[in-house]
Amino acid sequence: MISQKYKEMLSAKSVIRQMSEWAVGRAKEIGSENVFDFSLGNPSVAVPQAFTDKMIALLQERDTMELHGYSQSQGIPSVRLKFAEFLNRTYGMDYTAEHLFMTTGAAGAVAHAIRAVTQPGDEVITFAPFFPEYNHYVNQTGAVLKVVPADTKQFQIHFEEFEKLLNPKTMAVLVNTPNNPSGIVYSTETIKKLAQLLEAKQKEYGHDIFLISDEPYRDIIFGGVEAPYVSKYYDNSLSCYSFAKSLSIPGERLGYIAANPNCTDSTLISPMCAQISRGIGHNCPPSIIQIAVAEVLGLTSELSVYETNMNIIYDTLVQLGFEVVKPGGTFYIFPRALEKDSVAFCKKAMNYDLVLVPGDTFGCPGYFRMAYCIETEKVERAMPALRKFVAQEYGVR
Amino acid sequence: MISQKYKEMLSAKSVIRQMSEWAVGRAKEIGSENVFDFSLGNPSVAVPQAFTDKMIALLQERDTMELHGYSQSQGIPSVRLKFAEFLNRTYGMDYTAEHLFMTTGAAGAVAHAIRAVTQPGDEVITFAPFFPEYNHYVNQTGAVLKVVPADTKQFQIHFEEFEKLLNPKTMAVLVNTPNNPSGIVYSTETIKKLAQLLEAKQKEYGHDIFLISDEPYRDIIFGGVEAPYVSKYYDNSLSCYSFAKSLSIPGERLGYIAANPNCTDSTLISPMCAQISRGIGHNCPPSIIQIAVAEVLGLTSELSVYETNMNIIYDTLVQLGFEVVKPGGTFYIFPRALEKDSVAFCKKAMNYDLVLVPGDTFGCPGYFRMAYCIETEKVERAMPALRKFVAQEYGVR
Repeated sequence: MISQKYKEMLSAKSVIRQMSEWAVGRAKEIGSENVFDFSLGNPSVAVPQAFTDKMIALLQERDTMELHGYSQSQGIPSVRLKFAEFLNRTYGMDYTAEHLFMTTGAAGAVAHAIRAVTQPGDEVITFAPFFPEYNHYVNQTGAVLKVVPADTKQFQIHFEEFEKLLNPKTMAVLVNTPNNPSGIVYSTETIKKLAQLLEAKQKEYGHDIFLISDEPYRDIIFGGVEAPYVSKYYDNSLSCYSFAKSLSIPGERLGYIAANPNCTDSTLISPMCAQISRGIGHNCPPSIIQIAVAEVLGLTSELSVYETNMNIIYDTLVQLGFEVVKPGGTFYIFPRALEKDSVAFCKKAMNYDLVLVPGDTFGCPGYFRMAYCIETEKVERAMPALRKFVAQEYGVR
Repeated sequence: MISQKYKEMLSAKSVIRQMSEWAVGRAKEIGSENVFDFSLGNPSVAVPQAFTDKMIALLQERDTMELHGYSQSQGIPSVRLKFAEFLNRTYGMDYTAEHLFMTTGAAGAVAHAIRAVTQPGDEVITFAPFFPEYNHYVNQTGAVLKVVPADTKQFQIHFEEFEKLLNPKTMAVLVNTPNNPSGIVYSTETIKKLAQLLEAKQKEYGHDIFLISDEPYRDIIFGGVEAPYVSKYYDNSLSCYSFAKSLSIPGERLGYIAANPNCTDSTLISPMCAQISRGIGHNCPPSIIQIAVAEVLGLTSELSVYETNMNIIYDTLVQLGFEVVKPGGTFYIFPRALEKDSVAFCKKAMNYDLVLVPGDTFGCPGYFRMAYCIETEKVERAMPALRKFVAQEYGVR
C-alpha cells in the first residue's frame, strides 16, 4: 500500500526548487539571458579537459570488465588508497585506505555519517544558516536535528546559543565550512573553540560526540583566506567531501567520508557505512568515475570565476549600503534583506527578474542567498537590475 | 556515538562473500586458474564495443556541463522518456516518462520500491530460494520479510504455502524472475495465478498489495524459454531493472523502477522515490551513464556464453544423477546437494577447489548454487573436479 509519509512529502516543495522553476518559466517568456537567476548552486565552469581526456583514455585502454566491474562495497581499494595519500599530503593527516568510504556525493556522505554515529532519538546539532537538506538527512535516520541560531555578525559560530543546545542526547554536530549559504569559512579560532567545547562535553557526558564536517566547497577558497581542515583539530571527526563543485561533475555522484584515524573505531566507520548502503540498496558510486577521479586528484576546474563574480556582487551590495559579510569561498553570498520579511523582499525582486532565495529556508530569516555560479557577463548585467529593484522598492540608491 | 546496530552487522558476514574470500586466498596458493570459483554473480562477458564508443563520443562531443551536470532527482527527463518508449515497444506497455524513476542498480530500485509501498510493521512476502540481500532491503525500512518455502519440484511458486502467509498486513510481494539462485523463469501460468490471487486478496483486505518484480536477469533467457513480463499481468506492479548484467556494467550502478501505468498513484511513485532518495542522500545514478545507456537501449553484451556454460554443467549434473531443474535463464543453477547438510556438502567441495554456495543462504537448505559466469574453458575443466569430488565423497560416478 502506498506510503502516506512519502506521498505527503510531495506537497512540501523546496523553496529553492520553486524559485528555480519560476525562473525557468520566466525564461520562456523573456529569454533566459534576461532572467537573473541566482537561485541554484550548480557549478558553472567547464569540467577540466584533463578529466575528460582521462575518461576517454580509460575507455580506450582498460579492460571493460575491470573498468565497469563491481567496486567493493567500501569503494575501489586502490582509489581509497590514493584519496588517503592525497589527504595526507595536502592536510598533514595519517589516513589509510581503511579510513575512506566512497559515497554518492557529499549528500550520501553526510547521510551515511549520521547513521554511523547516531541512533533514533539522538540529537544532532547544526548551525544556522544551513543547507535545508540536512533536515532530511537527519530526520530520516530517526535522529533529531537541533539548530543553533546564526551569528549574524560574522556567520561564525554563536557559541552562547550552541552551549544552550548541548545536552547528553547530543551525539553529533554537523558543520559546513566553507558555508552554504553564507559563503563564510570558519576561522581556525572558531574550529579550535568548537573542538575544545566538544572535548569538554564528551568528558562531561561520558560518551563520544562526533563532528561531521560537510566540505563540498573545500576547494573554492578566495585569495588570502585561511581555510583550516576541520579534522585536524578534533579526533572524533568525519570529513565529508564531494567532487561535484571542484571538478564540476555534480551529476556523476562521487564523494567520500574520511574518518579521522584517531576517532573511536576509526577503521570500523567505513565497513559500517557499507552495511548502511546494503540496507538502502545503493552500494557504491560509479566505478569509472572513481577510477578517473583518482587519477586526477588535486586537479580542479577553473574556479577563479567565482571570486570574480563575488567581488562584483559584494562591491555593489556594499555601495548600496547592504549589511553583508564578505564570503571567503563557495559561490554564495548572504546579505541582509532590506525589509524584515525576506520572503516578501525576494518576491518583489522577481518583478525585476532577479531570482533570490529567502534566508528562511536556511534557518535564517531576514537574509537572502545569491548563488553566483553563473557567467560573469550576466552577473555584471544583473547589477543594474539590482540597483533598480532597491531604488524603486526601497528608495536605496 | 558509534551506532551499535551497524557495528554488530559487521560480524555477520555474507556467506557468499566468505566463500569468495576463501577462493581468493586459495588462488594465491595454487593459481587462480586452478580454483573453480562458482561463488560470485559477476558478469563475465565484455561490455559491448558500441557502449564504449558511445561513452567516448559523448565525452568528445557534448558540452561537459550538460554531460556531467545534476540530473533531476527522478532521473534525466529525456532518458526516462527513452526507457518508457523502449519498454512500450518491447513489452506492449503504456509507460510515460512519469512512470520511470532512475536508480543505482536493481538494489536501489527494490529498496526504494519497498519504501514507497510499505510502512514500518507491514509485511512483505517473497519466495525461497531468494537473494539474501532482500533481508536488508526490507528490514531497514521497518517492514518485515516473510518467506514462502520453495517449490523444490519446479522452483515456480508454492501457492499452498503462499496462501498460508498472506494476511491483512501483507502490503507487498517481491518476486525475482529469472531467479537468483535457481535460474528458473516463472511461467505465464505462475504469474497469472499469482496475479489472480493478489487481486482477490486486495478485495478481501480492502487495500492495495503491490507486486515488486526484481528483474536484473530479464535479458538472460535461454533458447526456447518463454519469459513473460510480470507487469503485463497485474496492475499494481513495480518493475525493477538493472543494466548490470545485460551490459556487463555492474559498477556503474544504473537501473530503474517502472510503475505500471494502471497502478494506484502511478505517476506519484517516481516523485515519491525522489523524496526517499533525499533522506538517504544518494540522489540519482551517474549522469553520463544514464545518457550513454539511453542511446544504446536494446543492446546487450554477448550473453550466449551463459547458456553454453549452463548446458555443460547441467548435462554433467544429470549424468551424475543430481536432482536439478534446468535453468531458463540467468547464470545460476541450483541442484540438490548429495547430503542433507548442504553447508557440509559445500565444505567438502572446497577440498577439490570447487567453490559452491550452500542453499541455506537463499532460504533453501539442502541445495547449492553454482554461478557459471566464468569462462567456458574453465567450466569444462571444472567438470572433472566435480566428478572426482562426488566420486570420492559420495561414491557417485
